[in-house]
Amino acid sequence: MIDYRQSGVDVEEGYRAVDKYKSHAKRTAIPGVLSGLGSFAGMFQVPAGMKEPVMVSGTDGVGTKLDVAFAMKKYDTVGIDCVAMSVNDILCTGARPLYFLDYIACGKLDASVAADLVKGVADGCVESNCALLGGETAEMPGFYDEGKYDVAGFGVGIAEKAAIVTGKSITEGDVLIGLSSSGIHSNGFSLVRRLITDFTQKADFAEGKTIGEVILEPTRIYVRPVLSVLEQFSSAVHGMVHITGGGFYENIPRMYPAANEKRQEAGLAPLVSSITKGSWEVLPIFEELVRRGADPERMYHTFNMGIGFILAVAQDKADAICKALTDFAASPDAGRCAQMKAWKIGQVVASQKTPASGEKLTQEEQVLFQE
Amino acid sequence: MIDYRQSGVDVEEGYRAVDKYKSHAKRTAIPGVLSGLGSFAGMFQVPAGMKEPVMVSGTDGVGTKLDVAFAMKKYDTVGIDCVAMSVNDILCTGARPLYFLDYIACGKLDASVAADLVKGVADGCVESNCALLGGETAEMPGFYDEGKYDVAGFGVGIAEKAAIVTGKSITEGDVLIGLSSSGIHSNGFSLVRRLITDFTQKADFAEGKTIGEVILEPTRIYVRPVLSVLEQFSSAVHGMVHITGGGFYENIPRMYPAANEKRQEAGLAPLVSSITKGSWEVLPIFEELVRRGADPERMYHTFNMGIGFILAVAQDKADAICKALTDFAASPDAGRCAQMKAWKIGQVVASQKTPASGEKLTQEEQVLFQE
Repeated sequence: MIDYRQSGVDVEEGYRAVDKYKSHAKRTAIPGVLSGLGSFAGMFQVPAGMKEPVMVSGTDGVGTKLDVAFAMKKYDTVGIDCVAMSVNDILCTGARPLYFLDYIACGKLDASVAADLVKGVADGCVESNCALLGGETAEMPGFYDEGKYDVAGFGVGIAEKAAIVTGKSITEGDVLIGLSSSGIHSNGFSLVRRLITDFTQKADFAEGKTIGEVILEPTRIYVRPVLSVLEQFSSAVHGMVHITGGGFYENIPRMYPAANEKRQEAGLAPLVSSITKGSWEVLPIFEELVRRGADPERMYHTFNMGIGFILAVAQDKADAICKALTDFAASPDAGRCAQMKAWKIGQVVASQKTPASGEKLTQEEQVLFQE
Repeated sequence: MIDYRQSGVDVEEGYRAVDKYKSHAKRTAIPGVLSGLGSFAGMFQVPAGMKEPVMVSGTDGVGTKLDVAFAMKKYDTVGIDCVAMSVNDILCTGARPLYFLDYIACGKLDASVAADLVKGVADGCVESNCALLGGETAEMPGFYDEGKYDVAGFGVGIAEKAAIVTGKSITEGDVLIGLSSSGIHSNGFSLVRRLITDFTQKADFAEGKTIGEVILEPTRIYVRPVLSVLEQFSSAVHGMVHITGGGFYENIPRMYPAANEKRQEAGLAPLVSSITKGSWEVLPIFEELVRRGADPERMYHTFNMGIGFILAVAQDKADAICKALTDFAASPDAGRCAQMKAWKIGQVVASQKTPASGEKLTQEEQVLFQE
C-alpha cells in the first residue's frame, strides 16, 4: 500500500518552503493587499479614485538563464529576472505594477532552493513597488529532473484608461531614448549557453567577476525611473518598448501599429526607427559573445546590446526627459537603477518605402541603423 | 558562427504557434478586453459601477497529469484542467473570473501540440466565462526533454469588497453542500501514475472507456453554477472550498480561520466539519486506485473522492440551494456542469476539543467522518 508521500511528493517539504516564503512576501506588502499567502486566492483592492481603471497583465519565465544559475548554484537572483520580464512588459503601456504571483515547478523540492528563488522574486517586487501576492510551488517527480526548477510569473498593473501609452501619438521626429541594460537580461540564453560553458572563467572585461557572474546579472527593472518620467512628462511620452526576446528588430516595431494604422489611412509612409550606432555603450559581454562565435549580423535580432528599454518622446522634451532619467538614477529612490544611463539613440522617421496594401515592411526596413 | 535559431530555438515555429493561438483566444473575448495577443501586455477594463472592486488572483499548474496526457498523445484537454485549478480557487472568494493567461514551456516546440494545449485553455476560459488575455510560450532546449510541455496559468477575477466570501459568517449548524467532481481532477497524479501505468486498458467500471480516458477527464469548473447560486442566495453562502491538493483534510479546514478567530476570542470551541460518509457517490476510479494499492486510510488526504467543491450554507436555505444547483445543471447554461450533482454531505459543528492557546487541532480533528 502506498500513499502520496511515497509517490515522490514530499508534502512536508512543501510546507517548509511556504513557511520560508512568508517573510519574503511580507516585505513586499503595499496598500491594497487584502490577503496573505495561504488563502485560496490573493486579493488586491483596485486603487480608489480612478476614473476608468484598466488592469494590465503580463506573464513570462526566465528561460534557460536558469541553467546558468543552477550550474553556479546561485538561486537568489533569477527571481528578479522573472519579475523584470513581466513588469517591464506591463510598463510599456504606462501601467503601474500592483502585484505579482510566481509559479515554481521542480522534480524534487528543496525548500531552501525554493526559498532562494522566492527571495529573488520578492526583491524584484520591491524594486517594482509591487506586492508578491501569491504563487504556486509544484513538485512533479519524474517530470522535471532533480535539481531543475522552472520559474515563471505573472504581474498585474493598473492604468487610467485615458493615460494608456498606445503608441498612437508617435510622430515623425520623435526622439528615441534608450535606457541602459544591466547585461544580457533574460533572453538569448539558449545561444549564450552554446558559446559559454565554463562559467568560472575570469571575465577579462569585467574586473573581479567571473563570466558566469556577468551573464547572471539580474535584468534591470525600469518601473521606478519610467513611472517618474510619466508623472512629470506624461503627454510627451508617445511610445515605449521593452527590448526582450528578439532584440531590437522584433521589439522596437511593436511600438508603431496604432500610429501607422492612422498614417496608412492618410496615405502616408509608415513610421520606422532610425538608430544611431555609437550613441550608447554596447556592453562588453556582447562583444565577447561575438568573439566566441555568435554571428555579428544577428546580434540585434536576439540581444538588447546594452539597451533594455526605449521611449519615443516628443522632440522638444527629449533633453529634459533624458536629464530627468539621469537625475532619477542618482536619486535615493533609484534602487537597482542607480547605474542606469539614458541616451538619445535615434529618431522616429518615415519609411522610404510605402508598402502596398497587405504587404509588410521587413524587420530590416523597420529598424534602420546609421553608423 | 552561430545564431539563436541554431542554438535550438525555432523562432518561426514560435510564430506559427502564436498564429494558431489567435483563433482560440478570439472565441473567449468578453466585454472588458482592450487588447489582443501580440502587444506587450494584456489589458482588461475594471467593470464599471462597482463600489470597491477587488482583484482576486490565483495561479496553478496541471502537475503530472500532463504525463498521462502526453503518454496518450491527448493534448487538448489539460488546458481545461489548467484553467480549472486557478478559477475554482478564485471562485472560493465569491469572485467572478475575468481573464486568464497561460504559460507553456517545452524543450522543443511543436506548434500543433502547443495549439492543442491552448485550445484546452480557451475551452476552460469559455466554461468560466472569462477571456484568454495572453500568455507565454517558452522553448527551452535542454531544460525540458523533447515531448514534454509544462502548462501553468494565472487567473484574475473581480469581487465587490463587501461581497467577498471570507468564511467569517460560518456558524454551527451550517450545512455542507458538496458538488460532484468529474474525476480525479488535477491532484494526486504522482501517486496515480505509480498505480496505473497502462492507460490503454479498458476500465471495467466505465463503459467503453480506457482507464487513461477516465483519469484524463478534465477538472470540473464550478464557476457558472456557483456564481448563479451567489446571485440568488448571496448572504446564505458562508464559506466555500475547492477540494484541491491535499484532499478533504487539507482543504475543508481552509474555510474556517476567520470564523474561528472570533470564536476563540469569545472562548468558544472552534468549528470543524462533520462529513457523512455515504451521502454522495464516491467515484469508482477512487475504489480502483485502492484496489491497485493506494492506502485506503490516506485517500481523503490526497483525493477529492467525488466532491470537487464544497459550500457552507445557512441551514434554512440548504435545500433551496441544493435544488438551485441541481436545476442549474439541467439548464442550457450548464456547459460541462450538465452532469454535476449537489448533495448535502455534512454539517458545521463545534469541536469537542478546545485547543489551548498556541495549540492547533489536527487535520483529523478538523474533518470528522460519520458512517
